[in-house]
Amino acid sequence: MTDRPKTPTLDRVRSPADLRHMSDEELERVADELRAETISAVSETGGHLGAGLGVVELTVALHAVFDTPKDKLVWDVSHQTYPHKILTGRRDRIRTLRQKDGLSGFTKRTESPYDPFGAAHSSTSISAALGFAVARDLGGQCETGLGDAIAVIGDGALSAGMAYEALNNAGHLGKRLIVILNDNEMSIAPPVGAMSSYLSRLYAGAPFQELKAAAKGAVSLLPAPLQEGAKRARDLLKHVTVGGQLFEELGFSYLGPIDGHDMEVLLGVLRQVRSRATGPILIHAITKKGKGYAPAEGAADKGHATGKFDVVTGTQKKAKSNAPSYTSVFAKSLIAQAEKDPRIVAVTAAMPDGTGLKSFAERFAPRCFDVGIAEQHAVTFAAGMAAGGMKPFCAIYSTFLQRGYDQVVHDVALQGLPVRFAIDRAGLVGQDGATHAGAYDIAYLTNLPGMVVMAAADEAELVRMVATAAAHDGGPIAFRFPRGEGVGVEMPADPQPLEIGRGRLVREGRGVALLSFGTRLAEAQAACEALEARGITPTLADARFAKPLDRDLILRLARTHDALITLEEGAVGGFGSHVAQLLAEEGVFDGGIRFRSMVLPDAFLDHAAPREMYDAAGLNAADIERKVLEVMGVEVLNRRA
Amino acid sequence: MTDRPKTPTLDRVRSPADLRHMSDEELERVADELRAETISAVSETGGHLGAGLGVVELTVALHAVFDTPKDKLVWDVSHQTYPHKILTGRRDRIRTLRQKDGLSGFTKRTESPYDPFGAAHSSTSISAALGFAVARDLGGQCETGLGDAIAVIGDGALSAGMAYEALNNAGHLGKRLIVILNDNEMSIAPPVGAMSSYLSRLYAGAPFQELKAAAKGAVSLLPAPLQEGAKRARDLLKHVTVGGQLFEELGFSYLGPIDGHDMEVLLGVLRQVRSRATGPILIHAITKKGKGYAPAEGAADKGHATGKFDVVTGTQKKAKSNAPSYTSVFAKSLIAQAEKDPRIVAVTAAMPDGTGLKSFAERFAPRCFDVGIAEQHAVTFAAGMAAGGMKPFCAIYSTFLQRGYDQVVHDVALQGLPVRFAIDRAGLVGQDGATHAGAYDIAYLTNLPGMVVMAAADEAELVRMVATAAAHDGGPIAFRFPRGEGVGVEMPADPQPLEIGRGRLVREGRGVALLSFGTRLAEAQAACEALEARGITPTLADARFAKPLDRDLILRLARTHDALITLEEGAVGGFGSHVAQLLAEEGVFDGGIRFRSMVLPDAFLDHAAPREMYDAAGLNAADIERKVLEVMGVEVLNRRA
Repeated sequence: MTDRPKTPTLDRVRSPADLRHMSDEELERVADELRAETISAVSETGGHLGAGLGVVELTVALHAVFDTPKDKLVWDVSHQTYPHKILTGRRDRIRTLRQKDGLSGFTKRTESPYDPFGAAHSSTSISAALGFAVARDLGGQCETGLGDAIAVIGDGALSAGMAYEALNNAGHLGKRLIVILNDNEMSIAPPVGAMSSYLSRLYAGAPFQELKAAAKGAVSLLPAPLQEGAKRARDLLKHVTVGGQLFEELGFSYLGPIDGHDMEVLLGVLRQVRSRATGPILIHAITKKGKGYAPAEGAADKGHATGKFDVVTGTQKKAKSNAPSYTSVFAKSLIAQAEKDPRIVAVTAAMPDGTGLKSFAERFAPRCFDVGIAEQHAVTFAAGMAAGGMKPFCAIYSTFLQRGYDQVVHDVALQGLPVRFAIDRAGLVGQDGATHAGAYDIAYLTNLPGMVVMAAADEAELVRMVATAAAHDGGPIAFRFPRGEGVGVEMPADPQPLEIGRGRLVREGRGVALLSFGTRLAEAQAACEALEARGITPTLADARFAKPLDRDLILRLARTHDALITLEEGAVGGFGSHVAQLLAEEGVFDGGIRFRSMVLPDAFLDHAAPREMYDAAGLNAADIERKVLEVMGVEVLNRRA
Repeated sequence: MTDRPKTPTLDRVRSPADLRHMSDEELERVADELRAETISAVSETGGHLGAGLGVVELTVALHAVFDTPKDKLVWDVSHQTYPHKILTGRRDRIRTLRQKDGLSGFTKRTESPYDPFGAAHSSTSISAALGFAVARDLGGQCETGLGDAIAVIGDGALSAGMAYEALNNAGHLGKRLIVILNDNEMSIAPPVGAMSSYLSRLYAGAPFQELKAAAKGAVSLLPAPLQEGAKRARDLLKHVTVGGQLFEELGFSYLGPIDGHDMEVLLGVLRQVRSRATGPILIHAITKKGKGYAPAEGAADKGHATGKFDVVTGTQKKAKSNAPSYTSVFAKSLIAQAEKDPRIVAVTAAMPDGTGLKSFAERFAPRCFDVGIAEQHAVTFAAGMAAGGMKPFCAIYSTFLQRGYDQVVHDVALQGLPVRFAIDRAGLVGQDGATHAGAYDIAYLTNLPGMVVMAAADEAELVRMVATAAAHDGGPIAFRFPRGEGVGVEMPADPQPLEIGRGRLVREGRGVALLSFGTRLAEAQAACEALEARGITPTLADARFAKPLDRDLILRLARTHDALITLEEGAVGGFGSHVAQLLAEEGVFDGGIRFRSMVLPDAFLDHAAPREMYDAAGLNAADIERKVLEVMGVEVLNRRA
């Protein structure tokens, strides 16, 4: 472990209130020490680094100027809040980040009163902050009181329609609301979209507003609210700022661009805004992701997310992997299919790295579309391409596809358009926790008419499912696969499309049949091996498809076994529920069968190591073994009776 | 029936190709006759009138100038396409609109090659059109060929984030794409939001661009594409148009505002755009909803949707109603609760009429928020208000709540915030058809931890559920109710909150238990009465809650009856699936029970009268009776054996 940094000024900060008694020079020192402390902590825990380093000054300035937690500070996405956590009474636990029972990597209402609104998905902050502002003006009550509402949102997050909807509504309502646009010219990947170019032009036009005088209070940025109306304020602002008409047209006062690392300017601007703002105001701050830590600043992703690392060199301490990640297997398979078929195109919503499509884009630039954080558009854009004869693969994490659900229903499924959904991060996701868990996609896709829904039991299956999706032109098709590494199986050299709606028998046994959908197959196999020692030899099948169901396989298993247990990494309402519906309709329950459906529990599972999460979910080999014994045990008891 | 209008010029139009041989004067006559024909048709069928009348000239001009169906004309929402249907080979069926086996009230790919993309939910058109444009440029193939891509989108639809996401992506890609902004200053309700004010300012600044010279070809609106780049075109446009910087900043050339009812200008502008446009271009056309039909122009909703009516007077022929609509019962109940509790606020996404919140807004203007067509923001804004101590009721149709699904999961359920979801139009919706069916909400809400999900069996139950939601501060709660009128039951004078997770026994019988969730209860009662004549007396219960389940009630029914049949107006994965999961876990299936779950079929049901749709779905009294007999019949057979 590297020595911890010396932080004499930061050590005096027990809560943000302590910042409010410090001089501006002391606050600058706090920021410097906070940056060192953040780097030190993340070097031990891993996690999101670059985003936090980019907002160190902003974090200190906001807490110093505003009366948190009464003033509601809403961080968008909130993976940039490690410095915020250190300042708000959680410094003693900062080295437990993203570990079981440790601090969350995101803001969380149950963790601190300084986290008024949890986040992890992008672009929610303006909506939430507007909700606080309206509640305040209507006399709402909450434990910490209600003061100013401040949203801190990145430029990447502004590509999401939700952020625009919120700006549009906030500009219309005209209530006092502060939005800090934290413009680091990238979210996770380099920026895309016209809005991003617009923001760059604003900065190019006037690199930084010279607001030192204003910061010192010699010149007022905003007229006093009592003397002048919001309209006047806006007109006046136009004289001290450049550009920003787009935000002005949406009803916001625009202020900037300002240097988000210049403490003097930040403090001055925030103080003036706090004392004089009337309506909605947007402060455009330019920051650098990874700021102040050379290895992060120099990295392509600006140190976005990292494992544990050596502070001096920046070298990550990575566990050696045994098998390729599902993500890389998907990307390679898609490239292989695209080599053969020029109709294949790919769509990502601002996640070229996370989805693996970056390598696809390198090979087939004109056929790869990063549409920004815009899942709604991504899905319907893909539907339009499908209607135009292309074969779009829409690669979106399970949890983010929730953002495009209506488009999946209304634009894709209802029209039977052959959009391929590659659903990464399906199931539990370890350290990213409940906000990123892919728990609902099986349920929300399997009840859509005409939708084909597959889950890969291992990375070789994933390769086959990519081939199946490429070949399937009769309607929409989805395949889900988990976060992390494959199980290390041999890969098919020439993957053939699967027969739609056909599962496979993995091991033939008797008494109990286990029917797995997706990645719990390996655990089920382990359970079977453990059960053999007790003389129990379950049958094990891989359903491959949750829709259409393999009716023949399922009914055969049900009719030739005393018990049938389904397994899936998803919430109730999905695969097991569709199997139950089939069994009910076919009268299988009439005569009795020990049917059980193992699903994710009815709870949001906190972040932990993957295995710990599966333990919590009750979906590991030992849980499966226990369930089999429980079902068999009941039978033994009955026979005795 | 009123005499049909005389339409000699329109009669010569068998397909849009015929328009292309006509003079501009003839096209004007076609437009006039098309307006008369549209009014005449809708007077016989009912349906959406105002929107179609507002785009008569635009419809004629677009089909005359562009090479449909090779050029892809994508209508947003598409309830304005009755004139389009008349021109595109469907005139002979236009008087079957919205009837069983008749024309859909929306565009539909299976109905005509002139409908390249179906719609009904708002704001999808730019995404879809961009998909066609990209497919074209990548050499995609489809049966009708791929030419220009044209989206026609209303100003109301621009309040949706999805439209912004599409503009942002289209401006970035820079491909030739034509967006017609059909600005009638209202969608269904008067406009809200800052974007709407912006559009008004554009028009106020220069009522109409004097483009007559350009229309005649004397002046070029756009430079020749071969001589000049898109950038130059954009700069030039700034000289002939006023405002539009917001769209320019997003990468679009802006052209307008123009008079959308001036055929000469429309034809001229469209012809120039067709021959010279390079990148994305937005044409801002000002139209009048209901144009040319005095009763529609004079109505508050501009003749948005109507029943059959008398053409001369505009008087609607409405069937007399026996019971109040669920929507009005909801609105009245909410007002009653809000009288007692100042914390209650309401949110609608551009549907103050449809959701009944208009009357709430009249009573409590500062506590009612119409956020525009912005379901994502609506949900998270409500979550913010809940975190600020208010009691938000988020009133969104089942089908539109799909747009805010991620926000329900991530911002509401995950944080356990007490947002109340009032889910209107849950279940089948008659003439609005598959696009508006509320089939999935039970499934997509019941698997969210901590969510309470209720369904009203009748209007008195709805009143109780509003009271329950108002009282429930422990987390999110949803209640669903159908389109249309209640069943005419007596209303509770002082509605008391229901006990969370408790159902009620409606009639005690034996042998078979029917467990209904929501509005199929009346049909189940009718089935029970019919069965009595055969000596069969089922038990009937109203579950009231799909989450949490009334475990005691369900297990008691299961253990004291031979058969248990669940009933719901939703797709598989919802109430019945949760009951099945409970029965499985409790070992009820082990010994055998005739369990059946009656749900919506796995199909998108086309528009028809409500009763016809329930017949198609197999959820009417006769279907329930048949299901009971089927289940009993098997038993009788078994006993004989």
